Amino acid sequence: MYNKKVIVTGCAGFIGSTLVDRLLKLNFYVVGIDNLTTGRLVFLKNPLKNKKFKFYKCDLLNFAEVNRIFKKSEMVFHFAANADVRYGHKHPRKDLEQNTIVTYNVLESMRKKGIKKIVFCSTGSVYGEPKIFPTSENNPFPIQTSFYGASKLAGESLIQAYSEAYDMKGWIFRFVSILGNRYSHGHVYDFCKQIINHPKYLNVLGNGNQKKSYLNVDDCIEAILVAIKKSNKKINIFNLGTDEYINVKQSINIICNLLKVKPKIYFLGGKRGWIGDSPFIFLNTKKIKSLKWKSKFTIKESIEKTVNYLMNNRWIFKKR
Amino acid sequence: MYNKKVIVTGCAGFIGSTLVDRLLKLNFYVVGIDNLTTGRLVFLKNPLKNKKFKFYKCDLLNFAEVNRIFKKSEMVFHFAANADVRYGHKHPRKDLEQNTIVTYNVLESMRKKGIKKIVFCSTGSVYGEPKIFPTSENNPFPIQTSFYGASKLAGESLIQAYSEAYDMKGWIFRFVSILGNRYSHGHVYDFCKQIINHPKYLNVLGNGNQKKSYLNVDDCIEAILVAIKKSNKKINIFNLGTDEYINVKQSINIICNLLKVKPKIYFLGGKRGWIGDSPFIFLNTKKIKSLKWKSKFTIKESIEKTVNYLMNNRWIFKKR
Repeated sequence: MYNKKVIVTGCAGFIGSTLVDRLLKLNFYVVGIDNLTTGRLVFLKNPLKNKKFKFYKCDLLNFAEVNRIFKKSEMVFHFAANADVRYGHKHPRKDLEQNTIVTYNVLESMRKKGIKKIVFCSTGSVYGEPKIFPTSENNPFPIQTSFYGASKLAGESLIQAYSEAYDMKGWIFRFVSILGNRYSHGHVYDFCKQIINHPKYLNVLGNGNQKKSYLNVDDCIEAILVAIKKSNKKINIFNLGTDEYINVKQSINIICNLLKVKPKIYFLGGKRGWIGDSPFIFLNTKKIKSLKWKSKFTIKESIEKTVNYLMNNRWIFKKR
Repeated sequence: MYNKKVIVTGCAGFIGSTLVDRLLKLNFYVVGIDNLTTGRLVFLKNPLKNKKFKFYKCDLLNFAEVNRIFKKSEMVFHFAANADVRYGHKHPRKDLEQNTIVTYNVLESMRKKGIKKIVFCSTGSVYGEPKIFPTSENNPFPIQTSFYGASKLAGESLIQAYSEAYDMKGWIFRFVSILGNRYSHGHVYDFCKQIINHPKYLNVLGNGNQKKSYLNVDDCIEAILVAIKKSNKKINIFNLGTDEYINVKQSINIICNLLKVKPKIYFLGGKRGWIGDSPFIFLNTKKIKSLKWKSKFTIKESIEKTVNYLMNNRWIFKKR
């Protein structure tokens, strides 16, 4: 497979750009697409100097554009998304467009150009508020609680229907929250931003007892590469996460200890941090581990790496 | 609830028009919407004479139009759909638009107008090709095999996210195939049409062993009315079907015996009738039966009623 051409959508994002770096190291030709609304060109600094990388600024919602850029390739890594799970209820159309209709546009362009394989970033949010922990891929039929989860499940479903109808194959990854270098939204980002702005106090959404699992971005990319190498069904679904979870209070402790600050903590209350927030996310990762992948970083290490990255890259907190 | 105003989308369709008749009998004010691509005004013959019924021809894909027509109401029965499961692979955009984006338009208009309750026709196809029979509502997380199922699951998911975010409530019904008066597409329709055109032979998709369950349209409407009366969670999901299933060969026998014809049968082969066809559909209906609903008609009776309707209404076979 190496030395072949692949397409990466969302190539300038946190996870997408990390994937691009890795794919270029593996000697792939990479066509990267991003609309640069949340992605950042600076994450592509090295790829843009590499002859094996070609970048297109493109809004994937524009089908004609996608169709123009897509050329026969080995595989599409469809990483472009509205990854902002928190504000879905403020603009429900955004998730529909960016996560469902865009996935349709990508699949339909793949069909037209004879591209047969797609790798899709989905989310543990598709389990809604599960009753079984750790939650496995064949958990009982879920009820969605967020626009993000709903739109990603619709994307998964489209990939499945396309694979059935047109002899395509799909690798679907349901992530916990991803941490690491280039991380630029989520609770660690928010807390670090607050600590920079006002080290004496910290406002925290929810009651601080929300339990979440986290995975380092390098572990995440490695898991994806292992899975596409070792699994080859029509549809291959994998949870990606670590074997542990922590609550928001523990997370705050790790951050504050590392930064040597002792802010007064104000919990804004409620079991959930926001509408559609799942109070407990902990995924069963037996399936991906059966392929001999395991995570290298603990959640504590991932948070610390992330905090160090953010503190050394404070430009990332600036309004764009 | 009676004497209140409700909105019925797809009001000129097979199931939608049967619902409208029933709702008017129950003394509701009914606002009916249909784009008349598969719906037929003749099904609304009686409602159109009723002062409590108001009809709008409208394509629900046009958000401004939907938003204009929707007024504060008790409930929306969202029955409009591309119900053509068989040809999804010929135009995948159609299911996305008609079943997913339209459902978004309906929900968003409901939100803007403060309408809090939605009843949604989903499908047993959302279970893909299940491994457990009869298949229950909390079946393991399915993999989609049809564009129809994928688009309906996306619709279900949107309803769930809206209900979570905006204090709405949803009743989601996963149907087996529905039979009865005004039935105008599906295998009984195809077989009757063939028998009228060439009584000596019958072409049958698949190997004739596909096993399916069926429900009479009056039983279906009754189940929906019982469920919305007796269940009141944020999200209420019910399978609707009978306690039996038959295979295509048995179905052919019932039809041929009733019509007293003995065509030569040509099976076109394969376990599935078409791409994405599920070879076995049989839903667990314990949940709806726990509300004291039960089906009045056997599958045999439903097929016979349907054949009699079709034979007495041959205009329904004419190209439109």
